[in-house]
Amino acid sequence: MLLKGKNVSRETIYSGKNIKRIIIKESFNDEVLSYMNKKHIKYDKLPDQVFNNKYPNSQGIVVEINEFEYASFDECVKNTTNDSLCLILDSLEDPQNFGNIIRSFEALGGSFIIIPKNRSIEVNETVAKVSAGAYAHVDVCQVTNLNQAIKKLKDNGYWVMGTDMDGDTDYDNVRVDMPIALIIGSEGFGMSKLVKENCDYLLRIPMVGKINSLNASISAAIVISDIVSRRRKL
Amino acid sequence: MLLKGKNVSRETIYSGKNIKRIIIKESFNDEVLSYMNKKHIKYDKLPDQVFNNKYPNSQGIVVEINEFEYASFDECVKNTTNDSLCLILDSLEDPQNFGNIIRSFEALGGSFIIIPKNRSIEVNETVAKVSAGAYAHVDVCQVTNLNQAIKKLKDNGYWVMGTDMDGDTDYDNVRVDMPIALIIGSEGFGMSKLVKENCDYLLRIPMVGKINSLNASISAAIVISDIVSRRRKL
Repeated sequence: MLLKGKNVSRETIYSGKNIKRIIIKESFNDEVLSYMNKKHIKYDKLPDQVFNNKYPNSQGIVVEINEFEYASFDECVKNTTNDSLCLILDSLEDPQNFGNIIRSFEALGGSFIIIPKNRSIEVNETVAKVSAGAYAHVDVCQVTNLNQAIKKLKDNGYWVMGTDMDGDTDYDNVRVDMPIALIIGSEGFGMSKLVKENCDYLLRIPMVGKINSLNASISAAIVISDIVSRRRKL
Repeated sequence: MLLKGKNVSRETIYSGKNIKRIIIKESFNDEVLSYMNKKHIKYDKLPDQVFNNKYPNSQGIVVEINEFEYASFDECVKNTTNDSLCLILDSLEDPQNFGNIIRSFEALGGSFIIIPKNRSIEVNETVAKVSAGAYAHVDVCQVTNLNQAIKKLKDNGYWVMGTDMDGDTDYDNVRVDMPIALIIGSEGFGMSKLVKENCDYLLRIPMVGKINSLNASISAAIVISDIVSRRRKL
């Protein structure tokens, strides 16, 4: 993958993961440059015009990395505490939403993210960029079977909460003093049927407007921030 | 403006505002079609192929409207109650963010939105589309001078709260039992200096990650949903 731009390049370099090659333009100037010099991290420098022609809209820096390294679901589950908050993305499709979700999740202090393998989304260049580099600091696990993963989470003490327009529990009234696995469904169709049936709670965000649907990345942020906020006040 | 696609066209037609012309393709099928027939709203029908060539990616319906009609700031302020929640967008620039903010604001039950005139953003086709049609149901006011508007809001009992990375009040600990004007700054640089100085509170969203910045539309949704949630529990 070729990552373009300051934020995503900087965070990738700080994370030190998977880097094949770093290229900057001669006039590049950013805190990450001092960091690379201090840590003796190698980079290539191109004349500004050559760089700009080759990598337009890249703010003077690109980082080539190997494929994104997914985290081990088993390892993530091993580290469960009462404050764990994992996020399951069931059939999400839009890379903008995925990137934004990773960004919010990392900033608000979530534990790890689960996505289904061979379907819907993956961590690619767009996702990494939209996440403003947060992708480099978040554990994302790919699992073959979401429902088996949910079962394992339950066996490890997680309460599984899906977000659903027809949910019967207000998101801001559910208990938060236990490990939580929060499920966000696809943009158009929500969670798949079986996943929905496996939820302990179906959470609803009360809406009073005429449209009454939220962008998936917004729904995720609203529920995550509320869980984190109420845990802080416990 | 030419609005393309089901959601934005449907909501525009339901709102009944500013419509110049509605065009559908012959095979178009959606609840809004029955609505138009019932209400004797005129529309033009084109053969599918002609429509698809002329309006690609439009889901079979486009609506041509006059310029967006901004609401009167004075009228909006007149309707102030203790539950009023107005949103001020200071130098926001990204139409995706603006559209998403309108969508969340409408669904969560905000009162009206204020943007500066002749700067940054406006309600255009992209914003209307990203808002999933919510733009048609929200009062958006353009004001010449944000700081004068803020003064007027204060004179009418509003508490003015800016969101700022270096804020000194956690967003989820501020009082919510009074009219609130919430300010969201630009994506890169936050609020302008004078606007910031005019705030009664500077709200901070606690973040614990390595990136610690949120997309502007996500920040807005987190604070708005929390205000609304805590008001419900009062």
